[in-house]
Amino acid sequence: MLTLYGDLDSGNVYKARLLLAQLGISYRRVDTTQNRGEPATAEFRAINPIGKIPTLVFDDGRILAESGAILFYFAQGSRFWPEDDWDQAQVLRWMFFEQYSHEPYIAVNRHWKLHLPAAEQAALAERMATNHTRGLQALEVMEQRLSGADWLAAGTYTIADIALFAYTHTAGEGGFDLQPYPGIRRWLVRVRTQPGHIPQMREEPGVPVTMWPG
Amino acid sequence: MLTLYGDLDSGNVYKARLLLAQLGISYRRVDTTQNRGEPATAEFRAINPIGKIPTLVFDDGRILAESGAILFYFAQGSRFWPEDDWDQAQVLRWMFFEQYSHEPYIAVNRHWKLHLPAAEQAALAERMATNHTRGLQALEVMEQRLSGADWLAAGTYTIADIALFAYTHTAGEGGFDLQPYPGIRRWLVRVRTQPGHIPQMREEPGVPVTMWPG
Repeated sequence: MLTLYGDLDSGNVYKARLLLAQLGISYRRVDTTQNRGEPATAEFRAINPIGKIPTLVFDDGRILAESGAILFYFAQGSRFWPEDDWDQAQVLRWMFFEQYSHEPYIAVNRHWKLHLPAAEQAALAERMATNHTRGLQALEVMEQRLSGADWLAAGTYTIADIALFAYTHTAGEGGFDLQPYPGIRRWLVRVRTQPGHIPQMREEPGVPVTMWPG
Repeated sequence: MLTLYGDLDSGNVYKARLLLAQLGISYRRVDTTQNRGEPATAEFRAINPIGKIPTLVFDDGRILAESGAILFYFAQGSRFWPEDDWDQAQVLRWMFFEQYSHEPYIAVNRHWKLHLPAAEQAALAERMATNHTRGLQALEVMEQRLSGADWLAAGTYTIADIALFAYTHTAGEGGFDLQPYPGIRRWLVRVRTQPGHIPQMREEPGVPVTMWPG
């Protein structure tokens, strides 16, 4: 059985969980969390040298890391990956945008707000303000697209939507108000009503879980 | 003719230039640079809302952004993109790693060292030190792979190698010494000896250039 290393608090892990759930692929999960520093340990780096979650291990020992690569691999041949080259490039464009221009601001502020004591947050105030500005820019880019289109790419629900949903639907926890973005809010509802969606990020019916190191 | 917006100083632009050169695809370039703040202008955002280079515009008006998506699109059907799903996922895994765990540290320190006055660099000393540590971790991950393999993925030269070459071969300009990484240094030589390689990042024989806004 496929083993997913990661926790229920990580949007990057949630992306993999969402796609596996929607494809009906079963897996077990080893609860491995950045909040306890586990992915950075030598023991974890022996599995994935990058030291990050999500990391997937197959029965034959092969490993797959990077949420974008995991989404790509499992989406092949499914309705979540379009057939046309141009559409595929647009899906990846949004996925690279997410990792480079969205996640480092929106997810990082959320992580700090959820997990750092107030004093440490205060020390990071300037960086959090910069992140906030850049995160709003990322939301503007999404809004510009989603005010006139149902989906990010290819005219249908794809792994680009899964990738962006993860840290956009929890943006409020990072201090980002989605009220000014009606296109994004309508899109969040569309994503949530897809068959097999996991409505609560911390919910995982039927997945066997053990604690790190598993 | 294809129009590439970007400058000769950007590794992300260099990735696109390298692949187009190796595929023998001609294009014109509009010199658009972050050093003059051009990608962030409203005029540029009308072309690419993300406000970043490289941006490619096709004759029919379609645009393609994000270096990773550009590499993916043009590599389709070429020797730079493997046929097997698993190999493809590994190529993308390295490309996502580059954008998330390599470029934000190694390219950012290079950019600051090349373009910021000493006083501004001094004000960023703490962030540059953190970036340096994380950049070294990224180089360690590459070294671990390249000490035992000729190429990053798929057993052959792919767009993963193009993506990682860009900011690794200029890492010295960001204060990263490659001497401790013999696997990386041998790989840099292998990449440089690929047919059609552009040996100097600031060299572009035969490409018509106009200054922004073109």
